Amino acid sequence: MYIDALQYVAPSRAVFEDMRAGAVDMVHITVGYHEDLDGVLRNLSAWYTHIEHNSDLLTRATTVADIRAAHANGTTAVMFGLQNPLPLGADLGRVQLLYDLGIRFCQLTYNQQSLLGAGCFEDRDSGVTAFGRECIAEMNRVGMVIDLSHAGPHTAAEAVALSTRPVAITHANPKSWHDSPRNVTHDLIAAVTARGGMMGFSLYPHHLAGGSDCDLPQFAQMAADMVARFGPHFGIGSDLCQNQPDSVVNWMRNGHWRKTPVPAAVFPPQPPWFQSNRDFPGLALGFKQAGMSADDIAGLMGQNWMRFLETSWGPLDET
Amino acid sequence: MYIDALQYVAPSRAVFEDMRAGAVDMVHITVGYHEDLDGVLRNLSAWYTHIEHNSDLLTRATTVADIRAAHANGTTAVMFGLQNPLPLGADLGRVQLLYDLGIRFCQLTYNQQSLLGAGCFEDRDSGVTAFGRECIAEMNRVGMVIDLSHAGPHTAAEAVALSTRPVAITHANPKSWHDSPRNVTHDLIAAVTARGGMMGFSLYPHHLAGGSDCDLPQFAQMAADMVARFGPHFGIGSDLCQNQPDSVVNWMRNGHWRKTPVPAAVFPPQPPWFQSNRDFPGLALGFKQAGMSADDIAGLMGQNWMRFLETSWGPLDET
Repeated sequence: MYIDALQYVAPSRAVFEDMRAGAVDMVHITVGYHEDLDGVLRNLSAWYTHIEHNSDLLTRATTVADIRAAHANGTTAVMFGLQNPLPLGADLGRVQLLYDLGIRFCQLTYNQQSLLGAGCFEDRDSGVTAFGRECIAEMNRVGMVIDLSHAGPHTAAEAVALSTRPVAITHANPKSWHDSPRNVTHDLIAAVTARGGMMGFSLYPHHLAGGSDCDLPQFAQMAADMVARFGPHFGIGSDLCQNQPDSVVNWMRNGHWRKTPVPAAVFPPQPPWFQSNRDFPGLALGFKQAGMSADDIAGLMGQNWMRFLETSWGPLDET
Repeated sequence: MYIDALQYVAPSRAVFEDMRAGAVDMVHITVGYHEDLDGVLRNLSAWYTHIEHNSDLLTRATTVADIRAAHANGTTAVMFGLQNPLPLGADLGRVQLLYDLGIRFCQLTYNQQSLLGAGCFEDRDSGVTAFGRECIAEMNRVGMVIDLSHAGPHTAAEAVALSTRPVAITHANPKSWHDSPRNVTHDLIAAVTARGGMMGFSLYPHHLAGGSDCDLPQFAQMAADMVARFGPHFGIGSDLCQNQPDSVVNWMRNGHWRKTPVPAAVFPPQPPWFQSNRDFPGLALGFKQAGMSADDIAGLMGQNWMRFLETSWGPLDET
């Protein structure tokens, strides 16, 4: 099983064919950056149409059983999540509502301050807010995964402690390997993994040591080191934005919230060994060449995410 | 001229008649606590209907000229504002949009964390956020008054420094007089008034020394002391919630954001000398009995707000 815990691809049949060529069994697709609830509904609706028109390649997934069924019938399971809690507004009831719409992962913050906590690019990291505490409890109740990617370090640490269920960092790398504001400390990784949480390794060049020039052996060695240190609590969360135009990275950074955009941003080139959804088998090969065991490779490529998802989605069994 | 810079009355002809009986020339009506943009549009629409059906008593106002015209024709000018920036979402463009809809005051925060800054009941006061800085600049540009009521002290202090135009604290009292989280320090009052900003004295019992038992001479003496200390930068912002049921105070506190409401809240009884919109002339009498000059009383009752509004609404004249 190959699972990618974060992508924001430009949807097209060519990309979906790449997913099949890469044997990707499940992909978590972001349907909200700076969108409000209406915007998320439009994104979901557009994706539903893509899935319907490409049903030979894709299956919509909201459960682990859906992922297994997609695998069995040779399609890629598409699961949806939010990188920004903005669609919640200030309405706690929308956690359940968004869960009912199939949202299975939600970040507490995206780069800046949200109503729940602070993002990793905000000047001050205020921690989890009063509303954030309510949302964490509600996400725990309904079984929507709390994603700490893009969170401020203090907000993330508080969220790990507040959550009664394991949490995820779907797409980041260790700061010790590459010191980016988006990467995370060993302390946070230790806290997340000690509680059964998961981290997905990012393939986005800004999160890689050496950026676009990072080579596969470097990446694989980092992954092997992390597994050796913290155990089987890692997977892939590629942050792949296949075929997206540069206007999208400007949208990600500025949304509608900033009058004077940061200097026009462009997508950095992907490393040659991870250009598209076709490149997942190459990752597995890279892990093998780094000397990882077959079990560790299977875990990293998908089984660790599957084990996490088995107990993370939906209400806890009270029996 | 009698001006009240903050009310949240339950609209009815009886209340509008009280406004006329009290000679209230302009009242700032809150149309957003925890409402999103749709909710604010509904509240505005409902108020437009009230104004239309009671045009012998009320006039809608978006300019100082409107207030003078209302005064001239014996009606009360109704102006709208927000106690929560939630309707902005994360969209800076909505500042102009809300201005175009007649919103002339907007708080940066309401009690808890907003996307702009921290409220006075949030555990941590993170100051003005990156989006908050953008909004302050945009509110300055379009000429929407920044209202720091309900803000955290650090957020408020930063906002005063960031704003290029005078700001307001529409409804609060000095903490030195009554130590409530909603009241404000002399430092903040000094910063606001030194830059030409305004503060409206609140008549809400939780903001009064002695609460519901506060007497008019006490209140008038506090006002006289503040004018003596900081100059003619004060007015009334009564926070009057005339005829609202207790369900409204629960809505104010919990909105839709809190699962377990704080213990059921009730509106505290108003002091006997300030029960309704009929009681404005009594306030003026109280100020007189406290020994204030006729000019100071005229300023406090409305002229100070008028002078502030003359230069606060709309874009700055570039000529």
